[in-house]
Amino acid sequence: MSFSPLIRQLIDSLRILPGVGQKTAQRMALQMLERDRSGALRLAQALTQAMEGVGHCKQCRSLSEDEVCQLCLDPRRDDSLMCVVEGPMDVYAVEQTGYRGRYFVLKGHLSPLDGLGPEAIGIPELLARIKQGGFSEVILATNPTVEGEATAHYIAQLLANKGLIASRIAHGMPLGGELELVDGGTLAHALAGRRPIGL
Amino acid sequence: MSFSPLIRQLIDSLRILPGVGQKTAQRMALQMLERDRSGALRLAQALTQAMEGVGHCKQCRSLSEDEVCQLCLDPRRDDSLMCVVEGPMDVYAVEQTGYRGRYFVLKGHLSPLDGLGPEAIGIPELLARIKQGGFSEVILATNPTVEGEATAHYIAQLLANKGLIASRIAHGMPLGGELELVDGGTLAHALAGRRPIGL
Repeated sequence: MSFSPLIRQLIDSLRILPGVGQKTAQRMALQMLERDRSGALRLAQALTQAMEGVGHCKQCRSLSEDEVCQLCLDPRRDDSLMCVVEGPMDVYAVEQTGYRGRYFVLKGHLSPLDGLGPEAIGIPELLARIKQGGFSEVILATNPTVEGEATAHYIAQLLANKGLIASRIAHGMPLGGELELVDGGTLAHALAGRRPIGL
Repeated sequence: MSFSPLIRQLIDSLRILPGVGQKTAQRMALQMLERDRSGALRLAQALTQAMEGVGHCKQCRSLSEDEVCQLCLDPRRDDSLMCVVEGPMDVYAVEQTGYRGRYFVLKGHLSPLDGLGPEAIGIPELLARIKQGGFSEVILATNPTVEGEATAHYIAQLLANKGLIASRIAHGMPLGGELELVDGGTLAHALAGRRPIGL
């Protein structure tokens, strides 16, 4: 027995959500139909409004409903620091740390095999933004993956040519981690990056 | 830093989905905004169409776009068998087994503490449906939980008063399970329900 056309269409559409497979999509669709139709209609409206109303901040390229986002407009933030990340989710992660400088959001990382070069991920816009602001340091907070490292090094090279200081977030043991469980690469970084203990 | 109003509204709305908490909802919202806006708009449309277009079959009470569902209309099914389940998802589960009789879908199970009595879960409609059809056996396939068992026993009692045979799905070891891992109640049912091996 198959699902009726409207239910099947709903199940297929739910599968665009990250981490949602066939079985989860079925459960979501039937549960909404059985228990929360008004919530589902509100979700439909919220989806439409967000997709049509949310664009990108023209300064930091993060998601924003306004031309320039609240974070870029905030006059209390440190104008000498810029943090470069791979996506809008990373901005929310870095914000949790208490960082209070400015941001620039790339469209992911360099990935030549997928045809994603500097233009595709927004590096020209990053350079224009850096030229416009008077930053004393640019923190490269791309992910510690092969592609993220390559992207950070590429940007650092461009900035060095312009005489700007670029820094990279530290690699090492995550807090609460265990030496015997962590991978060799991380432990090698943790050893190489060791610092004197201030007493 | 907080999310902008439209993104926050989308995140809150996504949380009606079963198994989706704050963190997952954030990831879903930002991923759709960054990577698949047209998919999200299709999802919004599918939600609206399904919530407005899908009702309940007037015979079996399962989800259906038509007054009577395809399964109830199918002339090739066995009209002497009726299977009673707790929800539409259970119909799809029982269908996988090759069962080819009719169905009746309750609205969950009896739960006096939550104020759910026989009327709330649709037992009068079940009795009306049984009276209307010429069923020789009613299979009670409510879940093997305390509430599901109570519901099955309640219905069996009503049917016995009308001289109808009600049967209950078997309890025992799930296929591929291990004796040392299964709970005592299940194993007790498996022992009590033992059957001669046909050679």
